Amino acid sequence: MTRYKLTVAYDGTKFHGFQRQPKLRTVQGVLEKALFKMTKGKQIDVFGSGRTDAGVHAFGQVIHFDYPGNIPADSMLKAINSLMPLDVIVNNSEIVDESFHARFGVKKKTYQYRVDCGHYTDPFKRFYTGHYPYSIDVEKIKTAIKDLEGTHDFSSFAASGGVIEDKVRTIYRATVVYDQIQNELIFEFTGNGFLYNMVRILVATLLEIGNGRRDVNDFIRLFKVKDRQQARGTAPASGLYLKEVFY
Amino acid sequence: MTRYKLTVAYDGTKFHGFQRQPKLRTVQGVLEKALFKMTKGKQIDVFGSGRTDAGVHAFGQVIHFDYPGNIPADSMLKAINSLMPLDVIVNNSEIVDESFHARFGVKKKTYQYRVDCGHYTDPFKRFYTGHYPYSIDVEKIKTAIKDLEGTHDFSSFAASGGVIEDKVRTIYRATVVYDQIQNELIFEFTGNGFLYNMVRILVATLLEIGNGRRDVNDFIRLFKVKDRQQARGTAPASGLYLKEVFY
Repeated sequence: MTRYKLTVAYDGTKFHGFQRQPKLRTVQGVLEKALFKMTKGKQIDVFGSGRTDAGVHAFGQVIHFDYPGNIPADSMLKAINSLMPLDVIVNNSEIVDESFHARFGVKKKTYQYRVDCGHYTDPFKRFYTGHYPYSIDVEKIKTAIKDLEGTHDFSSFAASGGVIEDKVRTIYRATVVYDQIQNELIFEFTGNGFLYNMVRILVATLLEIGNGRRDVNDFIRLFKVKDRQQARGTAPASGLYLKEVFY
Repeated sequence: MTRYKLTVAYDGTKFHGFQRQPKLRTVQGVLEKALFKMTKGKQIDVFGSGRTDAGVHAFGQVIHFDYPGNIPADSMLKAINSLMPLDVIVNNSEIVDESFHARFGVKKKTYQYRVDCGHYTDPFKRFYTGHYPYSIDVEKIKTAIKDLEGTHDFSSFAASGGVIEDKVRTIYRATVVYDQIQNELIFEFTGNGFLYNMVRILVATLLEIGNGRRDVNDFIRLFKVKDRQQARGTAPASGLYLKEVFY
């Protein structure tokens, strides 16, 4: 058996998320089906760095699996890409030793979130951005987002449904850029881990700050209160991209 | 009755083209359905600047129609947008006099064609670009594309199925730009008219020139031979955008 580490991009629009589910089209399902074909009927488990929800995209999801035999890394890349549907592409393939684990070895992840600021929903962006048609003061967001960097209890920003007790995470870098040509806000968050829906809740809160509905220092209060009800919104899945996973 | 001129953008992916067809989802059909609702049951004919095929997009399709009563142009914009699906948006609305006709009044049109040059199909671009994974010499395309400007007989570049006898058209401007960040070739063609599939056939021919499969001066020969068989390819609908219509 040989362990392969692949970097995978996908358009999440037509997937019911990453994780295998009976009868539903998922990214893990599509990858395992390809490996089933390549091995002429062996069931190979694919391990991802983590799940992504329905509609969430990836530029750099990382997976690993153990494959019978030893084909070169770029033959693996070509073989598996030849079996991928048009909304999934494997961009990199490496042979790694058995200590590598796509999920347990994660050191950091970067998520990107794109928000279209146009007045109406842009027909070309409806599956690829969130949408905030209200007035925005980008400087306020730039000020507020810096409060996210560091180690904090993110209880106020975790959707119910998560089973993890410890809600303390470290965000190494949180940035926002306004892309004038696209009329989009591009958020990026690099951290050692993210709670369920955390990025989407953070973005919804940041947009409220930018709009003036919420105080620019509100994150400091929200970290203290540890109350999901105080950070109500969740930005839509369509704007979220798993950009990079670090090991 | 008041005549309205609207500028419409749409993602053509989920449409069976612009033109109304029984039982199929088309852009004209969606617009006429909205007007039917707004007038509480009147059948209003929508006239477009021209058809676009299934999968072809528009940034600036122009339509006109006659509406009973006289509501301000931006009330019309808001009303019709409130009834549009997410893949269509009206970007501009004007009241025009009855001499304006969206189709017969066209002076020039600009089409854009986007080609992704990546090795594999990019999951995020599969509905929004053509794809050419082979080597390309952009300078060759830049040289060849200049031969398209001027008045020529485009018989070699018209798909069968067109009923128009006169195949002479004038292209005022034909350009190509390589977008390094997107790894895309962006073609633009402005002309007084375009034959059926003409832009897509021109792009396929230009790509063959860029790849060296076809001589850089081949357009001069192709204008003379007036033979569709000599310009075989047709670039896919997904890369084509009706960018602007001039009156």
